Order: sequence, then structure tokens, then C-alpha cells
Amino acid sequence: MARTASLSGFPEWLPEERLVELHVLDTLRNVFELHGFGSIETRAVETVGQLLRKGEIDKEVYGLSRLQDDEADPDSAKAGKSDPHALALHFDLTVPFARYVVENAGYLAFPFRRYQIQKVWRGERPQEGRAREFTQADIDVVGDGELPFRYDVEIALVIAEALSALPIPDFRLRINNRKLAEGFYRGIGLDDTAGVLRSIDKLEKIGPAKVADLLKTELGASDEQAQLALKLAGIRTEDTTFVAQVRALGVTNDLLEEGLSELEQVIDAAVQRAPGKVVADLSIARGLDYYTGTVVETVLVGHEQLGSICSGGRYDALASKGNRKFPGVGLSIGVTRLVSRILSQDLAKASRSVPTAVLVALTNDDSWGAAQDVAAQLRSRGIATEVAAKAEKFGKQIKFADRRGIPFVWFTDDDGNHQVKDIRSGEQVVAFPELWTPPSEDLTVQVTTAAALPA
Amino acid sequence: MARTASLSGFPEWLPEERLVELHVLDTLRNVFELHGFGSIETRAVETVGQLLRKGEIDKEVYGLSRLQDDEADPDSAKAGKSDPHALALHFDLTVPFARYVVENAGYLAFPFRRYQIQKVWRGERPQEGRAREFTQADIDVVGDGELPFRYDVEIALVIAEALSALPIPDFRLRINNRKLAEGFYRGIGLDDTAGVLRSIDKLEKIGPAKVADLLKTELGASDEQAQLALKLAGIRTEDTTFVAQVRALGVTNDLLEEGLSELEQVIDAAVQRAPGKVVADLSIARGLDYYTGTVVETVLVGHEQLGSICSGGRYDALASKGNRKFPGVGLSIGVTRLVSRILSQDLAKASRSVPTAVLVALTNDDSWGAAQDVAAQLRSRGIATEVAAKAEKFGKQIKFADRRGIPFVWFTDDDGNHQVKDIRSGEQVVAFPELWTPPSEDLTVQVTTAAALPA
Repeated sequence: MARTASLSGFPEWLPEERLVELHVLDTLRNVFELHGFGSIETRAVETVGQLLRKGEIDKEVYGLSRLQDDEADPDSAKAGKSDPHALALHFDLTVPFARYVVENAGYLAFPFRRYQIQKVWRGERPQEGRAREFTQADIDVVGDGELPFRYDVEIALVIAEALSALPIPDFRLRINNRKLAEGFYRGIGLDDTAGVLRSIDKLEKIGPAKVADLLKTELGASDEQAQLALKLAGIRTEDTTFVAQVRALGVTNDLLEEGLSELEQVIDAAVQRAPGKVVADLSIARGLDYYTGTVVETVLVGHEQLGSICSGGRYDALASKGNRKFPGVGLSIGVTRLVSRILSQDLAKASRSVPTAVLVALTNDDSWGAAQDVAAQLRSRGIATEVAAKAEKFGKQIKFADRRGIPFVWFTDDDGNHQVKDIRSGEQVVAFPELWTPPSEDLTVQVTTAAALPA
Repeated sequence: MARTASLSGFPEWLPEERLVELHVLDTLRNVFELHGFGSIETRAVETVGQLLRKGEIDKEVYGLSRLQDDEADPDSAKAGKSDPHALALHFDLTVPFARYVVENAGYLAFPFRRYQIQKVWRGERPQEGRAREFTQADIDVVGDGELPFRYDVEIALVIAEALSALPIPDFRLRINNRKLAEGFYRGIGLDDTAGVLRSIDKLEKIGPAKVADLLKTELGASDEQAQLALKLAGIRTEDTTFVAQVRALGVTNDLLEEGLSELEQVIDAAVQRAPGKVVADLSIARGLDYYTGTVVETVLVGHEQLGSICSGGRYDALASKGNRKFPGVGLSIGVTRLVSRILSQDLAKASRSVPTAVLVALTNDDSWGAAQDVAAQLRSRGIATEVAAKAEKFGKQIKFADRRGIPFVWFTDDDGNHQVKDIRSGEQVVAFPELWTPPSEDLTVQVTTAAALPA
């Protein structure tokens, strides 16, 4: 675990670490599919024009160019902001997904539910919890023309269930609503709502006094307006009492009412169906992104400084085809950020570092074929099995299994009698290749949380 | 299936197509793990210096550069052959794997067995079977210092088993050995063995007459030498009779004998353990790559013009750390090439386009919570379930399920009585959320080959 990546910001896992990551990915996939989300993948590259379409994206993008460049090929133009057709690596999965939906609208059934688990790239300065190449696991639902608000509720509940199934500490989804915030700002007379959101987004970094300064100097807010905006951002409740707290601030606005009602529905459902996992947190802004309603960030309790491990929200205007709009809502889990933390703090462990449960030992060099027959019988019943490559002394073959972390070694004598040894306990028993099965905890690799590990 | 990629060379699948790809990936993973191969992933980028280290690599490489370039950051140097520290996307998984082994040698148990399923990128002109972004599925075994030849045999058998488990037409692994070929060329007095291999590699493209010309004009071969080289490349047997055919050419050389013995071992084992799947094909050369012994290409029978769907071999000198060598042997399946062909020719199909088996209908808008309770009970028993978002008329909710390809709709009346309808047959039965299970063929998505589909 003390290893550092040979290329800063591009983490790579050892085999036993990768097993923890695979467990996380398999668990997420299983929960997503049980909720009816289908898998898609989009290409790793988009055109620069597509990636920067929204203008305000603040992500650092990697451009591509072919080393053996061929001037006749338009795709190979040197990457640069100046050429919208140049190719670049995607920095998230939402923008490519929106493009995919628009391109394939004629082939999809709406509301379209998908999950997408892929690498993304951002050329930011690497630090703990922030890599240049990392895996995201996204779920989104996208409608054709309209998308009932109920999907905002559902997405939050699915993610709470998915995160609960992972070997990670307790977490909180911190949920806000852009309509609520923007309506409130308008209601107090601050019309540059994007500007206010941008300032409020800095609250955790620079504190309320400096945010108030920003609001006054950059947006011309009065002292009273700045204080009201900060009071709103200070509201945080585990139930729907935030509604009364906002109303107590005495601001009225139609958009504010709409936002209050939406956030109330999410929190109300979460209190019942995911108790303790969700808070209404009116400081959440989500920077420059494309969100228009519900916005979510997620913290690991006790690891708040790691940053959000799952973010997203409602976007009503990201995808459109002429007059046809495709509003969506989705959340994105930062898998690499989570797995890095699990590994660096030993929060979970794989029970062994190889899939192999059994090594079939060789009695002599000619027994390789017979050993492969034994292995094939075990594999046909789902038992991962390797065959030794050389007929070394049994002690050496057992040491080989031990070094690889394989729990069982299989022996066959010249008369075709079989025995299998648990090399941890030393226990050796007579066995039949068509019948013997390891205990279920040894059949496949188990990933367990530190709390569940024997002391 | 008539869709074309919106960016040439970067294919993307529709949800029902992706299910076929997922089935292929899951099947490969399962076979690999049953044989004791563990998963690793390497970063998508390598330094240009690393990728071009072997000098002769003929792959088209994509270089990276940050759009918002920061001169102080050495990683962000404009990509180019001139700067070995610049970053570029990997073009295969073998070169990154060799780098990973060298970097992590102290943490790995040798012989190290791993599988690796990832995207790779090559900036070549796209055509059928050749994409710019595609998925490879590799298995390799790497030793520390030495690697018994038996692993060459094992790798071929594992791949034959893996390919046999896929919904694809019959296939043939065409196997040769570089030692055999190089020893033979030396034995007839042609010492530029790499040059001869490069010419022989063009046999299928340009035919024997032109290859003979090349050998004579470019390598100074005599007519007799050229004819002998072509005779060797013409040998193709389904058993070990190639040995006698090579000997009949009357050439003697120690390296040739070593190669003959190695290839004989592979073919001998394959005849017994994977009958009909393997041929000794002495025309296989594998271009400019890093192979030193066994070399393999694989064709789909009846789809030979698609090119090789699985290639690789033995590489004794790819990875080293000072005096320490890590010889390896591995094969790489071209997943995207295979899946493209499966989809374009309807060789296999997913039984539905969504994971969802059941849609829980809403009787009225207030029943969403109760419907979620039903869904949770079904999911807890592994049944993928969605809940309707709106309490539309039942006919509309059934149509919604039909449009999404969901086979069952669940109804709960005001008294809490449940029924479930198979919307394909129209059959509707009383059901209990804690007991009901769909037939096994409807529980999860099935991917079946065209031959197995009902007429």
C-alpha cells in the first residue's frame, strides 16, 4: 500500500487491490441492474467542440493527436481549443451520455435508464482523492420531452442502496435544489444567480465572511442580501423541517416554492426509505455544472476532507435535438476516489490475492495431462483451479501455492487415488474430483470490511 | 444494426448490443478466473518513450496534450516522438503489462498469471474489423528469470476453451514458432531472419510469387533459398505430421530443432485436449512484434477475411530490470472485432434489451411507496424490478413495459392483493411478492446464438 503510482495521478492496483475494486464494481453493477438500469459505454473521446459546448465547463481536458500525423485526415488535426473537430478524452460520463441519447434517440425507449462504468480523464494537479485517470460509475434516467420529478427521488434512493452495499464507512447524501436557491436569490433581489451560486460554492473553502465579501464586491449585494444568502446556505436538516426554516427567512418567489416542494419530496421519501442516509443541505451548489434542479454531493462520515464521493443532479437542458428536449437526472460515484481510500486506510480486504482455490500438484512430469483432467472436473463445478507446471518435490509445490495464496493443493498418486490438503491448517483428506468442493468462504475471493475481519 | 458510428473508428453499441458484448466479457472473465488468472488494469497512458521502446513497433499511436497547457508541468509537454516523456494512449495491453510487471516485481508472486480486459487505441484508417478504439481481452503468464515451456501449451488451451464458450462460429488457432522459422532460415543460409519474417508475413496479402521476389531483391536470396522459405511457409497440418514435412526439406539447425520440439508439444496437447481447434501453420509470422517462440493467430471459420480474432505468443525479452528477465507468454482476444461481427451478422441476440424482468404498476399516485416495497421484495430475491413513475391507465403502463421489453407487469389492488401478468402471453396469475419468481429463462437476460434461436 506504500507504493506510489509511477506516473503521478494515474493509479494502478496490485492484484489483491484490484480484487477490492472489482468487488466494488460488481456490487454496483448488481444493484443498478436489479433496479432496471442497463449498461452502455461511450467512446473515450469526444470532439473538443462537444466537450466545451456548455462554454462554462471548468474541467481540464486532454487533447489527442496522432504521432504519425497525416495532414489529409481531418480527425488528426492537432488538438486545441481553436479546432472544435479535434478529439479529446471525456472528463465525465454525463456529457458523452447526453450526446449518445441525442444520436440514438430513435433506437431508445424513454424514459431511458442506463448505468455506465468507465474511466474518465482530467489534467488537474493530482492530490489525495483526485487522480488524472479515474473510474466513474453513473446512473441516469433521461426522458423524451419531459421526465417526472419522481425519478429525482428514485435516483437518490438507488444510490443510497448501492453505497450501502459497499465496504465503506457510513455516508450522507447532501441534497439541495437549484430552483430553491435561484428562486430565493431572485426573491431577495440578486438576479445574477449563477454568480451567487459560484460564490456560495466556495463556502467550505474560504468561509462565510469571505463569501459575503465576494457577494458584495463582485455582485453588488447589500449587507442584508449577503446575510440572507448565507443564512439560506446555513440550513441543514435531516428531515423536511428545512421548509419551515426557509419560510422563516420571509422570502417569497414562485421558483423558490417549486424548489422547496421538490426537495421536500426527496427528503420525505429518503427519511422513510433510506433513514439516516440523506440530509437537506442548502449550501450545496455544484459549481459551474449543467444542473437545473436537484443537486447532490455525498460525504463519507469521518472522511469529509476526501471530498464528494458521489455527485450529480437534475439537468433539463443538457441534451436536445432541434425542439426536442431530453431532460435527465443522474448521479455519479467516484469509484477510484472510494477505492483509493478503502485501500490506503485498509477499510476492506480480499481474502486472497488470486482467484485460484486449488493447485493440482504433479507427481511426475508425465502426469500433467491427468492433472489437467482433475482440474477440468473441478472447474466444471465452478472451482478455480491451476495445474503445477513442473513436477518438483511436493514441498516445493506446496510452497508455490502458499506464495500465490492458493488455499488447497490436490495430489493424485500413481494408482489414481486423490487427496486434497488445506495448506493453512495442514489437514489432508481423501477426495474425488467429481465431488469435492471447498467450503463456501474459500470457493471464491471474499472481500470483507475491516470491522468484519477477525481481530 | 444499420447505424454507423458518429465518429469513424469509434463504435458504440445500443443497449441490446451492449448486452451481447457484456455476455462475451463475462464469459471470458469466468473462464480466465476458473483457470487462476487474476484481473489487473493498467493506466490508459504510457510515456511515448515506453511505447516506442522496442523501436520497430508499427502501430499508430495517439499522443496526449492538455488543452489548458501549463508550461511548468513536464507531463503536459506537447506530444511528439521527439519527447519521450510525453504521454500517449497504449496501443495494446502487452507493452503496459510488461512495464507493470517490472515496476511491481517485488509485490507479485511468479509465475504471475493475469487477465486484462481494457480499451486500446490505434490511429489507423478504420475499416471492417479495425477500429481506432477497441477492447482487448488478454491472458499472460510471466516468469521471474525463466518460464517453463508448458505455459505456452496451457495458454493455447485456455484460449481455446474461452473462445469455445462464446456465441461465435467455429475457429482455428494457427500456431507457429519463431525459433522453428528462424532456425530454418539460418539453416538455408538466410541470416536476416527478421527480414525474411517480414516478407513471409505478406504472404496472404501479395501471394508467393511476389514474396519470392521480395526475398530475392531485398534480402539477396537465391531462387533455391526463396523456394525453401516458401515451402516451409506452405506447411499446415492438424496434427504433428508437420515435423516430418519440415525434416523432408533436409535442413538442419539447432534452433530449428528446438522450435520443432516446442511446436510439436503444443500441437500434441491440443490434438488431445482441444481437438479440431488448433493447426500448425508455418506461415504465421506476427509482423514486427516482440515474439521469440510460439506465435499464434486465430481465424473464425467462414470469416477468414475478418483477420485474426486472437493473437499473441511467447516473448522472452520484453520485460527486464537490470539483469533480471521476465519472460512471458500470452494471447489477446480482439473483443470489439468479434462483437462487431456477431452484431453485424446477427450471430447472437439478447433475449431482451433491459435487465428489468418486472414493472410494478401504480394503481394511484399514492401507491408509489407500496409499489417500492413490492419491488424491494422482488429485488431481494434477485429479480430486476422497476416501479412505474406515473399512475396512468393500466393499458398505458403495460404499453410502457412492452416498449421497454419488460416481460412482466405487477398489479396490486387497493386491498393489497397482488397479480402478475406475462404481457407476451397475456396470462395473469395471483402472486405474492415474497414468493413469486419468473421462469429461469426470464429471470436474467439470455444471450443465445442464432443457431439456438427459435425459427
